[in-house]
Amino acid sequence: MSSTAGQVIRCRAAVAWEAGKPLVIEKVEVAPPQAMEVRLKILFTSLCHTDVYFWEAKGQTPMFPRIFGHEAGGIVESVGEGVTDLKPGDHVLPVFTGECKECAHCKSEESNMCDLLRINTDRGVMIGDGQSRFSINGKPIYHFVGTSTFSEYTVCHIGSVAKISPLAPLDKVCILSCGITTGLGAALNVAQPKKGSTVAVFGLGAVGLGAAEGARIAGASRIIGIDMNPKRFIEAKKFGITEFVNPKDHDKPVQEVLAEMTDGGVDRSIECTGNVNAMISAFECVHDGWGVAVLVGVPNKDDVFKTHPMNLLNERTLKGTFFGNYKPKSDLPSVVEMYMNKELDLEKFITHEISLSEINKAFEYMLGGDGLRCIIRMDS
Amino acid sequence: MSSTAGQVIRCRAAVAWEAGKPLVIEKVEVAPPQAMEVRLKILFTSLCHTDVYFWEAKGQTPMFPRIFGHEAGGIVESVGEGVTDLKPGDHVLPVFTGECKECAHCKSEESNMCDLLRINTDRGVMIGDGQSRFSINGKPIYHFVGTSTFSEYTVCHIGSVAKISPLAPLDKVCILSCGITTGLGAALNVAQPKKGSTVAVFGLGAVGLGAAEGARIAGASRIIGIDMNPKRFIEAKKFGITEFVNPKDHDKPVQEVLAEMTDGGVDRSIECTGNVNAMISAFECVHDGWGVAVLVGVPNKDDVFKTHPMNLLNERTLKGTFFGNYKPKSDLPSVVEMYMNKELDLEKFITHEISLSEINKAFEYMLGGDGLRCIIRMDS
Repeated sequence: MSSTAGQVIRCRAAVAWEAGKPLVIEKVEVAPPQAMEVRLKILFTSLCHTDVYFWEAKGQTPMFPRIFGHEAGGIVESVGEGVTDLKPGDHVLPVFTGECKECAHCKSEESNMCDLLRINTDRGVMIGDGQSRFSINGKPIYHFVGTSTFSEYTVCHIGSVAKISPLAPLDKVCILSCGITTGLGAALNVAQPKKGSTVAVFGLGAVGLGAAEGARIAGASRIIGIDMNPKRFIEAKKFGITEFVNPKDHDKPVQEVLAEMTDGGVDRSIECTGNVNAMISAFECVHDGWGVAVLVGVPNKDDVFKTHPMNLLNERTLKGTFFGNYKPKSDLPSVVEMYMNKELDLEKFITHEISLSEINKAFEYMLGGDGLRCIIRMDS
Repeated sequence: MSSTAGQVIRCRAAVAWEAGKPLVIEKVEVAPPQAMEVRLKILFTSLCHTDVYFWEAKGQTPMFPRIFGHEAGGIVESVGEGVTDLKPGDHVLPVFTGECKECAHCKSEESNMCDLLRINTDRGVMIGDGQSRFSINGKPIYHFVGTSTFSEYTVCHIGSVAKISPLAPLDKVCILSCGITTGLGAALNVAQPKKGSTVAVFGLGAVGLGAAEGARIAGASRIIGIDMNPKRFIEAKKFGITEFVNPKDHDKPVQEVLAEMTDGGVDRSIECTGNVNAMISAFECVHDGWGVAVLVGVPNKDDVFKTHPMNLLNERTLKGTFFGNYKPKSDLPSVVEMYMNKELDLEKFITHEISLSEINKAFEYMLGGDGLRCIIRMDS
């Protein structure tokens, strides 16, 4: 039992006071975990585009002050009542979506969309009692997607915490909490390209390059990257991308360009931008008879996916995935093992490393399209 | 070798001289098969909606005079040059789509959409020499989808002919050439419902009831039939349909009705109407996390399938199928075996039986929505 168990912990956190305004490093109070909750000491966190999206709060419910952050690695500090599967000292990855192990989704082999703990970006409090565990001078600070990892300590529902090997370096595997795993699983679990096949990846950010890494691991022989930002192409070569297509370089729809490059269409495509036109291209670029398109990127509220139904009748498959179809508690430990066994390479995703006090730099890198993942060290 | 081999055969055929006008029983000349072709004696044929659709020729390229018919059973009368896998006396089912065994689709385990012999409703001649094998007083009569089974003798490319067990009764298994197999395969090969699952079938014609039969064979415990024609419901009970929904009985979209009936959505849905709104409902009624919707019905030329991409991102799958994903030559014999082993029941699909001279009655039954399949006996 740690000496802090059952006590309020005062620690540093990066607080977003207002939409789009720089985060401020504050001293916050973190209450002890309640039933079915754990308190984590966060050692490393990284910035994902979803944090930026809700921090900007354009077209989203603004919820401030709030502590963002959902890609991270840490150690259990203390556990609440009824917690049996986690104990102080366990190495863990908090995850933005959970696994209650009791609902129809958790019991289904096919789904990872837990009814109880599925991502909810509009909930800023703990699911157990509707309260926040964070406060400054008694004033509550909202949580974000059940993780709020931009704090030295945070409280999570046990269903949102994956226990991993204590041998895994948390400064590397922390990036498996969200984007990289999402792309990787979209390829390995959903698109499932065969050895020697051709895969198109739309959007060469961290998620898309996670998908490219998955396609490489599955043995795809051609991995075609599609992005409007030519800067992305340089980095993408490290990820096994064999060919590049910039839609801006062509007068015709990119699905036609890809069909010409591949004698009728790619075997698999993976859409990681969230742009609805890219989704349509990603679907229409797969080969009839056997092509499978997988949608990963999150669309806008009013988007409409449109296609001629004959594109489906000609034996194309269209699927969507959430967190790469990985069940967070059950499956994430095995993704960490893939890294430990050197099947999966994570180092190339990490392009920056900063201290918590410099956290606003991570936002600048991301907004500038500079690099992939920026690790934020919490102890400095 | 039959005594007619190498000779022109004069026989009876039902000729469509004009769009939408009754067929006329004529004496036609059927030329001998050329290289990679066989001439078949048709014993039984049945009428499928596709025949009616191209006979009406609304919105289709009119091609007359023409001999329709593509669901049939017969016996090989003679073979052309280079034919090694079929011989006179073989019992066969001609099929509207073929299998060349050499193209990328035929070589793929996943596709049955042969590049060479894929259905082509606008081609009225043999693929080998661009000529018709049918004539009346020297004037050519067009073929239909490579089968033209409304004739006592017809000529087919060997890729469009499946050899089946000589023990199978041709007056029953002839209906496996098209619609029933399409529905059956949509369920067994594509939707693949698990034992105990819930399946929705849109459209309770022969294809939809073939899908229901497939769902029953797969062990689905609830099979919900959706049709606007209340007459269909009476017949559907014989096919294991456990519940009926008529969209006209409800004020809300049928996908909402189905979601309420099934605690969030069905496990699988199969769309057999070709109506684009039914396609959208069939997709949106499947459960998030694991639902799979399969499109079977052929849409109109200008239809647009529309949905919110979040319906996909929530881990729903949308697929289309053609001929139930069965490869016609390779797989149809095993469907015949399912009937022979009493796994598949065909008798209940056969609601009428007439002679060739009465063929226009079959059109009346279909246009009136009366019954499912009408067997046409060629020898009477």
